[in-house]
Amino acid sequence: MSVHFKRIALVGIGLIGSSLAHAIRQNGLAEHVAISTRSRTTLERARQLGLGDSYFEDPGDAVRDADLVVISVPVGSSGAVAQQIAGSLKPGAILSDVGSTKSSVIAQMEPHLPADIHFIPGHPIAGTEHSGPDAGFAELFQGRWCILTPLPDTDTGKLEALSEFWRACGSKVDIMDPAHHDMVLAIVSHLPHIIAYNIVGTADDLEAVTKSEVIKYSASGFRDFTRLAASDPTMWRDVCLHNKDAILEMLSRFSEDLSALQRAIRWGDGEKLFDLFTRTREVRRSIIEAGQEIDAPDFGRHVVKK
Amino acid sequence: MSVHFKRIALVGIGLIGSSLAHAIRQNGLAEHVAISTRSRTTLERARQLGLGDSYFEDPGDAVRDADLVVISVPVGSSGAVAQQIAGSLKPGAILSDVGSTKSSVIAQMEPHLPADIHFIPGHPIAGTEHSGPDAGFAELFQGRWCILTPLPDTDTGKLEALSEFWRACGSKVDIMDPAHHDMVLAIVSHLPHIIAYNIVGTADDLEAVTKSEVIKYSASGFRDFTRLAASDPTMWRDVCLHNKDAILEMLSRFSEDLSALQRAIRWGDGEKLFDLFTRTREVRRSIIEAGQEIDAPDFGRHVVKK
Repeated sequence: MSVHFKRIALVGIGLIGSSLAHAIRQNGLAEHVAISTRSRTTLERARQLGLGDSYFEDPGDAVRDADLVVISVPVGSSGAVAQQIAGSLKPGAILSDVGSTKSSVIAQMEPHLPADIHFIPGHPIAGTEHSGPDAGFAELFQGRWCILTPLPDTDTGKLEALSEFWRACGSKVDIMDPAHHDMVLAIVSHLPHIIAYNIVGTADDLEAVTKSEVIKYSASGFRDFTRLAASDPTMWRDVCLHNKDAILEMLSRFSEDLSALQRAIRWGDGEKLFDLFTRTREVRRSIIEAGQEIDAPDFGRHVVKK
Repeated sequence: MSVHFKRIALVGIGLIGSSLAHAIRQNGLAEHVAISTRSRTTLERARQLGLGDSYFEDPGDAVRDADLVVISVPVGSSGAVAQQIAGSLKPGAILSDVGSTKSSVIAQMEPHLPADIHFIPGHPIAGTEHSGPDAGFAELFQGRWCILTPLPDTDTGKLEALSEFWRACGSKVDIMDPAHHDMVLAIVSHLPHIIAYNIVGTADDLEAVTKSEVIKYSASGFRDFTRLAASDPTMWRDVCLHNKDAILEMLSRFSEDLSALQRAIRWGDGEKLFDLFTRTREVRRSIIEAGQEIDAPDFGRHVVKK
């Protein structure tokens, strides 16, 4: 199956939107890429970078005549964007998004959309801690999963076309129920980010240890957390607000487990500590074997010469 | 000042011990390196790798005639090792260690040591998640800090000699009070490891999300934590048991902050979330500027081609 759209519209041109623009160009997936984003400065930057073929301040203008529209905005803005573009969408077009929460995006967007639009929410499991149109690169999706959460009445042909699009960008595609997506992402993505933000905040607030000490000695573990804690604040605020229930559930399990661990430390239960610390080692091995992590010590940060 | 020891003894030949062996050879810091480790298999492996010049099952035999002895064992074994080597140490020798906790190591070792030994505890802030004699490499200490925590009566000449040794291995050296070291490391290293172990354990225990889902979608954040959670279980059990007070203090601050964050999520306090998520971004920038982290997205894991 050849994947080729006459016209693709990208609404939002941050890390994901700009990476899509690069991937579309590199793999020849569209004749024309129309770009729109809320900030005039960002739109101008996208133009300077030559990310698309046309640029629009109004997302309604960008989506006109597009066969595929991909919304890549913070999930809290999904409803407003749907409202802005609803009247301009081409009948029969595929409309998707890349948001980190799915139930909330569906609830915000669906009510605004005409019946002749194929709305198939999606979420590429890929990213870096950088944001904005300069951060994108074509290989971001290579070997990563993209989860699509079709609605009950989704046209299977259109679902397959969108799946092929993501495969052409380098992704592997999974189909999932929106609510299950939100539960899975709460543990694999949302909780890790929240924990990372929290520990960096805790360290930043200490009086007994100076900021300069935290920075100097960060290679002993702390710096790993700062990567996630450097992610886009607007995006992550919205994730927290829009996947609240699943996040609160995971947070409460995490805290329960941490209390048990804290108790083991207080009472010197070495066996319990050793058991947990052994079990967790296996998980990383599985992730490396699944091709979702590089097989080099320290994320390959060290150049190992033997 | 030229740093050259006639004979260096390395007791323990895991990641740090073997990295020291490589660094000593590469920089010509000793005429002879004697190696001892508790496990016969590990000692044999060190011999196969050619890490030293002589190999001993009894650490007492290894330290005989050594001008510098470096103990690189899990901190819970420090006392036993001190007892084993005390009678064989050469008068005037420098004895140091690399343990992640300092007050406990001093309390365990000092009572066994003869008065004519210069005991200067140390801690190189460097490591990877790998362990054992195969994991070592000469560049591990390059650009990293090594903290020395001399005792009140430490000879300044010997302290300078040990500092020069670490500088010759590529480190920058800081002098610190042992109790302050333990407080600093509790936040920059011990808490991050405990949190990482904990979240990986929480994810591994879920029923609603399968292990295979956690692994497949781990690139969305979770996998970062699995690196620290793949660290040596014996070493980290001992750290938890031997820096209990400082760790419990940091854990309780972390949990307090997490409760406040959880409350902000529950009540939809977007402003509070945004403020924290913005503040933490700066910390990473400072770490990169201090040369303690690489300046590439995603720890350089992605090959960025533009």
